[in-house]
Amino acid sequence: SDRESSRGHRFMPIDRLNIFSDAVFATITTFMVVPLKEEVQSYDVTEDLWTSLVADWYRFLVFVISFLIVSTLWQDHVWILQKVEHVGDVGLILNVLLLLVASVIPFLAALMGDFYRYPLTSRLFGGCILTLSVVQGIMIALAFRRSKMLSDHLEGDKTKKWMSVEFLSTAGLKIVLSALSIGIAGASVPASLVLLAVAMFTDWICIIVIAVYRSRKDQSFSTGIRTHLCRRFVFEDVDIDRTQTFTDGVFIIVATLIILDITADSLVPLNGKMTEEALYEALLDKKEALLAYISTFVTIGMIWYINYSMVYYIQRLSRLLLLFNRLTLLFVSIVPLGFQLVSLFSVEEAGTNENIAVQFHCILILFTSVFQLLFWVAAHWKRDKHIASSLGGLHRKRIFCLLLVYPIASLVIFCAAFSTSVFKVNTIHAVELSIPFIFLLIKLIIELVLHKRDSQSVTRG
Amino acid sequence: SDRESSRGHRFMPIDRLNIFSDAVFATITTFMVVPLKEEVQSYDVTEDLWTSLVADWYRFLVFVISFLIVSTLWQDHVWILQKVEHVGDVGLILNVLLLLVASVIPFLAALMGDFYRYPLTSRLFGGCILTLSVVQGIMIALAFRRSKMLSDHLEGDKTKKWMSVEFLSTAGLKIVLSALSIGIAGASVPASLVLLAVAMFTDWICIIVIAVYRSRKDQSFSTGIRTHLCRRFVFEDVDIDRTQTFTDGVFIIVATLIILDITADSLVPLNGKMTEEALYEALLDKKEALLAYISTFVTIGMIWYINYSMVYYIQRLSRLLLLFNRLTLLFVSIVPLGFQLVSLFSVEEAGTNENIAVQFHCILILFTSVFQLLFWVAAHWKRDKHIASSLGGLHRKRIFCLLLVYPIASLVIFCAAFSTSVFKVNTIHAVELSIPFIFLLIKLIIELVLHKRDSQSVTRG
Repeated sequence: SDRESSRGHRFMPIDRLNIFSDAVFATITTFMVVPLKEEVQSYDVTEDLWTSLVADWYRFLVFVISFLIVSTLWQDHVWILQKVEHVGDVGLILNVLLLLVASVIPFLAALMGDFYRYPLTSRLFGGCILTLSVVQGIMIALAFRRSKMLSDHLEGDKTKKWMSVEFLSTAGLKIVLSALSIGIAGASVPASLVLLAVAMFTDWICIIVIAVYRSRKDQSFSTGIRTHLCRRFVFEDVDIDRTQTFTDGVFIIVATLIILDITADSLVPLNGKMTEEALYEALLDKKEALLAYISTFVTIGMIWYINYSMVYYIQRLSRLLLLFNRLTLLFVSIVPLGFQLVSLFSVEEAGTNENIAVQFHCILILFTSVFQLLFWVAAHWKRDKHIASSLGGLHRKRIFCLLLVYPIASLVIFCAAFSTSVFKVNTIHAVELSIPFIFLLIKLIIELVLHKRDSQSVTRG
Repeated sequence: SDRESSRGHRFMPIDRLNIFSDAVFATITTFMVVPLKEEVQSYDVTEDLWTSLVADWYRFLVFVISFLIVSTLWQDHVWILQKVEHVGDVGLILNVLLLLVASVIPFLAALMGDFYRYPLTSRLFGGCILTLSVVQGIMIALAFRRSKMLSDHLEGDKTKKWMSVEFLSTAGLKIVLSALSIGIAGASVPASLVLLAVAMFTDWICIIVIAVYRSRKDQSFSTGIRTHLCRRFVFEDVDIDRTQTFTDGVFIIVATLIILDITADSLVPLNGKMTEEALYEALLDKKEALLAYISTFVTIGMIWYINYSMVYYIQRLSRLLLLFNRLTLLFVSIVPLGFQLVSLFSVEEAGTNENIAVQFHCILILFTSVFQLLFWVAAHWKRDKHIASSLGGLHRKRIFCLLLVYPIASLVIFCAAFSTSVFKVNTIHAVELSIPFIFLLIKLIIELVLHKRDSQSVTRG
C-alpha cells in the first residue's frame, strides 16, 4: 500500500536508488585495496617485512585518502538524499553519472600509487573530485529547487533555508578546494593531496562556520556554539538503513574478494597432459590458501555478526557514531591485504618474517574491533537517544562480551608473535575458526541464565 | 515502531540477513565470469574468434551450470526464508556456513573448466552441492520445527503440512542426486554434470509430483493438475524486494568489475625513471579502455534503469517472471566477457575478427534485452495480478519504447558487422553512449504529451 500510494506521484520512490548507490559505493571502497595487493605480491619474502611496508608508505597514504574520499562521497549522498523523497529521470541520470565518475577512483588511486611524484596523477585525481563536487552541487540545487522532491516535514520550515545554505556552501567550498588542488599540483604534489584531504571535511567546516555565524548575537556565545554543534554532531539522525546497506556491502565484498585470488591463479602444472594424482597433489597445495580463505571469511562474518547484534539495538545514528563506523570499515577493507601477506609469508624461506605478517593481520583485526567497541561505548553516551529501551542488562553484557573477544584474541596473538621462534600461520587459523564456538558458548550461557530466571519467576509466582 | 515491536521477540528480524545473503549470492554469481575472462586473455587475435570460442564450449557449459546452481541456491533461500520471520543464532550461523560453501563455487567452476576431463573435479563440485543441500535441509527442518520463526499466516494452516513435505522432499531429492553425481563421476564426467543440472530443477519436479499426487482422486484429473500447477507457477508470490536486491547486486558488480581490469594492469613502462610526457602518452593509450569502460557502465546502467522502470509497476512476481529475470541476469553476468573480447580484438592485427567480437557483444546485449522484453510481456498475462492498476496507457507505451531500444540497436549492429570491411569498435561506443539521450528524448515526448493533455483538460474545465 505504501508502494501503491507512492506510485501516484510522477516521481519515483528513492529507496531502490539508495540501495543501488550504497552498493556501488561499497564496491568501489573495497576495490581500492586491489592495487595494494598487487604491489605486495612483488615483495621479497626474505627481506624484513616492516621495511618493505614502510617503503610503500605513500601507497597506504593514497589508500587512506581514497577511502576518505569515497566514504565522504557516500556520506554526502546520504545527507543529500535523506532530504529527498522522490526522484525524477534527470536525478536518476545525474546519479548514474556520479557513480560512474566515482568508480574511476580505484584506477586513479592505483595510478597515483605507482607514480606519486608526478603532478599529472594528482591533477587527474583532483579533476575527478572536482567533477564529483560539481555533479553533487547540481544534485543539491535540483533537490532544493523542486520542492516536490523534498520530504514533507522540511517544506516551508525555516531550517530549510539554513539547510540549503549549508549544502550549497559545502559543495562550493569543495569545488574551490579541488580546483586549488589541481592548481598547486605543479608546485607540490603533497600539498595538493593535503588540500584534497581537507576538502573531505568541508561539511564539518561549514557546520562550524554556520554555528559561529548563527550564535554570534547570542548573549552566551560559547553555549550557543556548543548547542549548535552538539545538535548537529550528536543529535541529528543519519539514515540507519543506508548505513546498514553500505556496511553490509563492504563486509560482503571483502569476504568474497579473496576467493577471486584463489580462482584467478590457475593451478601451476598446466602443461598438457596431467594425471589425476598430479591434480590431486596440486589441489592439496592449495589447501592452505583455502583454509586461509575460510578463516578470513569466518572472521569477517563474525565481525559482521557483532555489527548486526549492535545495530539491532540502535535506534538512531549520529555523525559521531557514523565516524566510528567508517573507521571500522577502513580497517575491514584492508583485511584482504592482511590475508594476502599471511599467505605470502607462510613459507619456509620467510623465517620470522612470518611473525610480522601475522602481527600485521592482528593489527588490522585489532583496530577493526576496537573501533566497533568505541562505536558501542559512544552509543551509550546520551543513551536514551541511541539505544532501544528494550535492551536489557543481560543482553548488554552479552554484546560487551562479544565485542571484547576479537580485541583480546588479536592482542594476545600480536604479543605472542614477538617470540623469536617462527610463529606458524596455522595458529591464527585455529584461533579464528574457534571464535564462532566462543560466541555460541556466550549465547549458551545467556540462554541458561535466562532459563534459570524464568524458572525462578515461575517458582515465585 | 515496527523495529521496536520486533525487538520484543527473542529472535532477530530477517530483513537484514536477507539483504546480506542476496548480496553475497549476487557477488558469487558475477565472480564466475572471471575464469572465462582469464581464458580469453590467451586467445590469438589473428585466429578466427568463433573457432576459439567453440573450442572452449565446456567452459561456457560449466559457466551456465554454475550460474544455474548459484541462482537456484538463491531462489531456494528466498523460498525457505519467505516462510520465516525471525531467525536465531543457530540459523544465523547456518546461513553464514551456507554462504561460505557457496562462495567456493567460482573456484570449483574454474577448476572444472581447466580440468573438465578429470572425475576429481566433478566429484569436488558434486561434494560442494551435496554439502549445500544438507545445510539447506537442516535450515528447512529448523524453520518448520520452531514454529515461532514462521510467519503468522502460515501457522496451523493445512498448507503448512504440504509445504514442509515439498521442501523436505526437494532437499532430499537434491541430496540423493548430488550423491549419485559424485558416484558416477568415475564412470562418466558428462553424466555427473547432467545429474547436477537436473538436481537444480528438483523444486519443479517435486511440485509436479505433488500436484499429480494431490489431484489423483479428483474427478477431472487434468484440470486438477492444471489448477495446482498454475497456482504454483503463476499465482504464488515471490519476494519482490529480495529479487530486486539480487538483481541490483548483479548489475552493480558487473558494472564495476571491469574497472578492476583497468586498475590491476599497471601501465606498461614501469622501468625506473619516467618522464611526465611518457606517463601522459601511456595514459592516452589507456583512453580506449576507459572509453570502453564508460560505455559498458552506461549500458549496464541503462538496462538497470529499464528494470527499475518495469519493476516499479510490478506488484507481484511469479515463478514464471522470476525465470525470465534469471535469464536476463545470466546474460548480464557474461557482459564483462563481451567487453573484454571487444577491447582485446580492437587492434590492427585482428582484422575482421574485430567484427566477430562486436557481434558477440551484441548477442549478449540482445539476449539480455529480449529476456527483459519477455519478462514484461509475461507480466501482461493475467495482468491484474502482476501489474499495478496505476500504470496508464501512456506509461505502458513508454516502457515498451524503452524495452525496444536495445534489441533494435544490438540487432542492427550485429547485422552491420557482417560486412566485409573492418567494423570499428568505436561505432559501438558511439551507439551505446547515445542511448541515454534516446531515453531522455522518449521521456521528453511523454512529458510534452502529458503537458498537452493537462492543458487540454484545463481548457475544457
